[in-house]
Amino acid sequence: MVFEREIGFSTKGSLDMVDITSEVGRVVRDSGIEEGMVLVFAPGATGAVITIENEPGLVEDFKRVLREIVKTKADYLHDRIDNNAASHLRASLLGAGKCFPISRGELVRGIWQQIFFVELDVRRRNRRLVVKVIGE
Amino acid sequence: MVFEREIGFSTKGSLDMVDITSEVGRVVRDSGIEEGMVLVFAPGATGAVITIENEPGLVEDFKRVLREIVKTKADYLHDRIDNNAASHLRASLLGAGKCFPISRGELVRGIWQQIFFVELDVRRRNRRLVVKVIGE
Amino acid sequence: MVFEREIGFSTKGSLDMVDITSEVGRVVRDSGIEEGMVLVFAPGATGAVITIENEPGLVEDFKRVLREIVKTKADYLHDRIDNNAASHLRASLLGAGKCFPISRGELVRGIWQQIFFVELDVRRRNRRLVVKVIGE
Repeated sequence: MVFEREIGFSTKGSLDMVDITSEVGRVVRDSGIEEGMVLVFAPGATGAVITIENEPGLVEDFKRVLREIVKTKADYLHDRIDNNAASHLRASLLGAGKCFPISRGELVRGIWQQIFFVELDVRRRNRRLVVKVIGE
Repeated sequence: MVFEREIGFSTKGSLDMVDITSEVGRVVRDSGIEEGMVLVFAPGATGAVITIENEPGLVEDFKRVLREIVKTKADYLHDRIDNNAASHLRASLLGAGKCFPISRGELVRGIWQQIFFVELDVRRRNRRLVVKVIGE
Repeated sequence: MVFEREIGFSTKGSLDMVDITSEVGRVVRDSGIEEGMVLVFAPGATGAVITIENEPGLVEDFKRVLREIVKTKADYLHDRIDNNAASHLRASLLGAGKCFPISRGELVRGIWQQIFFVELDVRRRNRRLVVKVIGE
């Protein structure tokens, strides 16, 4: 069995982080799939899906670390074309999708392990993530 | 067909790395699934699953690089609450799960490509990973 | 339903980046699977699969950032054995595989979101990636 639903939302631009855990859990329950896995995927080259505890201080720490690992401005070649090189580089590093197990009809995750979309683009965006459930 | 088994073990705390390749391979063989994929997933916000060659020097190099990319102490906001910000940040960066193909009943990987759990928490933990096999 | 095909190509060594998007799309179409997911996996400990826009400047920016995050030479212990520690460390950080959704018989991705193999080894290699499609 395969089930798909899109999750849509707006972001506030650079490094906005959106907790989508409950939406993903709802898609899993609505799929009727008891055992399998779910792929949460962000189409696009300037967004990422990660897991992190939803603690506001930690979320800020994550943004800071990401800015340190890939500096926002650093004479990137792509900035001569589109002025959002850091957005792309951070997205490539984090990855556009993550897979999670489904057991007994529920999304498997740790208590503090929330699923977030990370907006890496420099401006507000309307995002549509693809949540694909496979199993039986 | 879907098959699941948990892999349980204890870790020694911060940056302990546990080779789980043979356990994952055994789950794949026991599943009876000939063609498909397997998801190796660590529930929890302070652990990660990666692939790396099981060469003791390289494993130490990996720990060192991880400490350089995300410093252990750096006035993180989350450390005011729980004192393990770096654990969370490193886990979010590496990712909690990895997928592997299954072909002719065997886990597909390179000869030197071992599957490791990386303990990122600051203390000893009992861990239970979820290994989910899907295919036919 | 499960379908597999290998994608073979040669690389030019360290940080050669090969756009495999059209090959992966062809495997998805040839599989006849309408709804599901595809895993693009690089067997081996010195290669990675990522997504990034295929803009030559950005591709160079990505190589530069990767060299900054994991320095090529830094007294790594593994370099005493095999002289390619940075290759392994970069591969472990980026990950050997990525999953993508399949909807209405097509690979789901953003317009600028191309799939690349990143050669992290220090020499030319012949690579064979495994593309595994699961669905219905």
